Amino acid sequence: MRVLITGFDPFGGEKMNPSFEAVKQVQIQNQEIEIIKLEVPTVFYKAMKTIEEEIEKSRPDIVICTGQAGGRTDITIERIGINVIDARIPDNEGQQPIDEKIDANGEDGYFSNLPVKAMVRSLKNNDIPASVSNTAGTFVCNYLLYGVMHLVKTKYPEMRAGFIHVPFLPEQVTDKKNMPSMSMEMMSKAFEIAIETALTTEVDVKEIGGTLH
Amino acid sequence: MRVLITGFDPFGGEKMNPSFEAVKQVQIQNQEIEIIKLEVPTVFYKAMKTIEEEIEKSRPDIVICTGQAGGRTDITIERIGINVIDARIPDNEGQQPIDEKIDANGEDGYFSNLPVKAMVRSLKNNDIPASVSNTAGTFVCNYLLYGVMHLVKTKYPEMRAGFIHVPFLPEQVTDKKNMPSMSMEMMSKAFEIAIETALTTEVDVKEIGGTLH
Amino acid sequence: MRVLITGFDPFGGEKMNPSFEAVKQVQIQNQEIEIIKLEVPTVFYKAMKTIEEEIEKSRPDIVICTGQAGGRTDITIERIGINVIDARIPDNEGQQPIDEKIDANGEDGYFSNLPVKAMVRSLKNNDIPASVSNTAGTFVCNYLLYGVMHLVKTKYPEMRAGFIHVPFLPEQVTDKKNMPSMSMEMMSKAFEIAIETALTTEVDVKEIGGTLH
Amino acid sequence: MRVLITGFDPFGGEKMNPSFEAVKQVQIQNQEIEIIKLEVPTVFYKAMKTIEEEIEKSRPDIVICTGQAGGRTDITIERIGINVIDARIPDNEGQQPIDEKIDANGEDGYFSNLPVKAMVRSLKNNDIPASVSNTAGTFVCNYLLYGVMHLVKTKYPEMRAGFIHVPFLPEQVTDKKNMPSMSMEMMSKAFEIAIETALTTEVDVKEIGGTLH
Repeated sequence: MRVLITGFDPFGGEKMNPSFEAVKQVQIQNQEIEIIKLEVPTVFYKAMKTIEEEIEKSRPDIVICTGQAGGRTDITIERIGINVIDARIPDNEGQQPIDEKIDANGEDGYFSNLPVKAMVRSLKNNDIPASVSNTAGTFVCNYLLYGVMHLVKTKYPEMRAGFIHVPFLPEQVTDKKNMPSMSMEMMSKAFEIAIETALTTEVDVKEIGGTLH
Repeated sequence: MRVLITGFDPFGGEKMNPSFEAVKQVQIQNQEIEIIKLEVPTVFYKAMKTIEEEIEKSRPDIVICTGQAGGRTDITIERIGINVIDARIPDNEGQQPIDEKIDANGEDGYFSNLPVKAMVRSLKNNDIPASVSNTAGTFVCNYLLYGVMHLVKTKYPEMRAGFIHVPFLPEQVTDKKNMPSMSMEMMSKAFEIAIETALTTEVDVKEIGGTLH
Repeated sequence: MRVLITGFDPFGGEKMNPSFEAVKQVQIQNQEIEIIKLEVPTVFYKAMKTIEEEIEKSRPDIVICTGQAGGRTDITIERIGINVIDARIPDNEGQQPIDEKIDANGEDGYFSNLPVKAMVRSLKNNDIPASVSNTAGTFVCNYLLYGVMHLVKTKYPEMRAGFIHVPFLPEQVTDKKNMPSMSMEMMSKAFEIAIETALTTEVDVKEIGGTLH
Repeated sequence: MRVLITGFDPFGGEKMNPSFEAVKQVQIQNQEIEIIKLEVPTVFYKAMKTIEEEIEKSRPDIVICTGQAGGRTDITIERIGINVIDARIPDNEGQQPIDEKIDANGEDGYFSNLPVKAMVRSLKNNDIPASVSNTAGTFVCNYLLYGVMHLVKTKYPEMRAGFIHVPFLPEQVTDKKNMPSMSMEMMSKAFEIAIETALTTEVDVKEIGGTLH
């Protein structure tokens, strides 16, 4: 099995981005799992170009993108990416699209097809605070999640993909007031557990849901 | 023009639901606007049945659903409803679906087609704290938003619809710790402004967005 | 009975200070209660000079100082003023003392001798969110509280005094993220109730406490 | 030099108390520093008895008490203990004093005579989130801080003492919503740095403060 795990470069005035720092520490002992690590620029459009080239080249079974969600207290597994860019701050190349669709013909939202609930359970069972998040925001993180799920829908239907947000690192918050943080060790352990769970568990949304009309 | 505005009945142990309390106070002076007020039960399935019957009967131009988002500090205009029920607590009839699709064939998410950004601007211009929210949660509020937007997509394409969340009322938080609240007067004034803006403004998401592939 | 109630002028870049705005709205029907309203500058040293002159002149039975505690969700009745200035931002005349004692010979802290718990109870009984606070910070609010209690200890032993913090007003938070607020009407009603309770209730700290050695 | 560092046993339904867990991990290499570790019961009166016996026996130069402040994001060095018990929950022997003085003849508050600001600086310089706190609450933590400072004032004037609060551990918050946490490693490292700084730095409150009258 091949797993592509990505993190972003620093943005918003931060000196580091915990997501790729933690990705670099990930170690999977299982010989049958190949891990590809990729740093993605916090730049609209270019972020998708970067990941799409890697996907085309290495054809991963699973793609796990990760990013920083400053202010959150725990590891959050994103449930859905939505078809909008609404940038509160400029990206790393100064672009700041407001209320633009990511794909003019795409659906309004795409669920991750990773087992988000199972991943949360595994993390908690390992004493790592975690929860499902219902919004990845409207900046580059959501852009990447939506874009990758669009790839799944349109080009790689067998691929499974999703997004994990991490809090700030302790060293990022020493000059911020009342801002939660998490250790790098816990983040990279979280990614290792998330990968293992994603590889071994079925998606958990029941398709049995009612029909509205 | 006909506007249907709904609120929920109390749930989760609360004695009142600020959403319908504030809906009751809404007064629109404009003679050309007819306001229909409807209380919707905080019950999965029955909530949609209730609103769909009213929509069928009165054929509103605009539907604004409202609900309580305890813990939020401001009026939030929801951007999207997503196709999942994941109930943290039972609804008012004891149902607690977990990870079920709302509509087995529906898309993963549906954007509101109200002018959410313009509504936020109008509210702020009137000194009312407001913001766009990217998640209506996964309880009955999101269920209703998704369900109504599904109706727009499948049956009433001319109809415009969306969802407004309100904080707790002051009297609901006197025994809660560090919980923000907002006055009823401000909530109902917010609804009046939101209605007016929704009636007079175009939607603001640009369809010019790029194409991913 | 004579009551002196004070509020501050705006500071920290705000256009208004809810404390004195709400003080201005206070109305007590009871003919036997005389209310003196005083605006105090958000300036170390000058704040005490201003209030001390008024106290000397009008000899109030009760002094209630009020101030803005941006970020709090409810009306907070302060329990204690402490003998330190540790200014996070400059005051309105550019002074920013760090870790200086307010009075070189004063005790480390002085409890308010208002019935803080009874005041909280009265407010809650009137559906106003309220709680006891154990810190008035280390800026001009705490300075004024400590200074006035020092006056009680050293010069006016019959006088009762204390401090009430209010949240931001809604109009102050429309451009702040996730910041709670409270309506002006509720704040001034809170002050009226606080005055009445302070005039009619005994202090609630029991002097029966153990002796450590 | 002899340092007494204390932590509490678990309370409030928690299975562990991070304070004493982290105290157990503290290791000081410096041969000239003797560390005495003591677990204190989360019980009014008994807590003081426990620590006072140890102080009498070992005559420490410095006493650092530590405790859990669930909900805080960082290491907080307490500035002051206040002369009141106001227990929100029962202690570990079911006692729940409300608004009682700790010492009937004690002053209203006692500042810690540790260099609180210098300790915060050292922690931040070591990438550990930290801040000064102006309230240790009104439960057993504040009781112990006030009690120990009372000992300093009345019996051991050469002794230096203070209190450090720590957040929850990650494993304590996996079932709590939006609750910040900190790793045990960081807590015990924080204690080691705090001890070193306390041993080598002067107190930072300037006695030059003005005189009120």
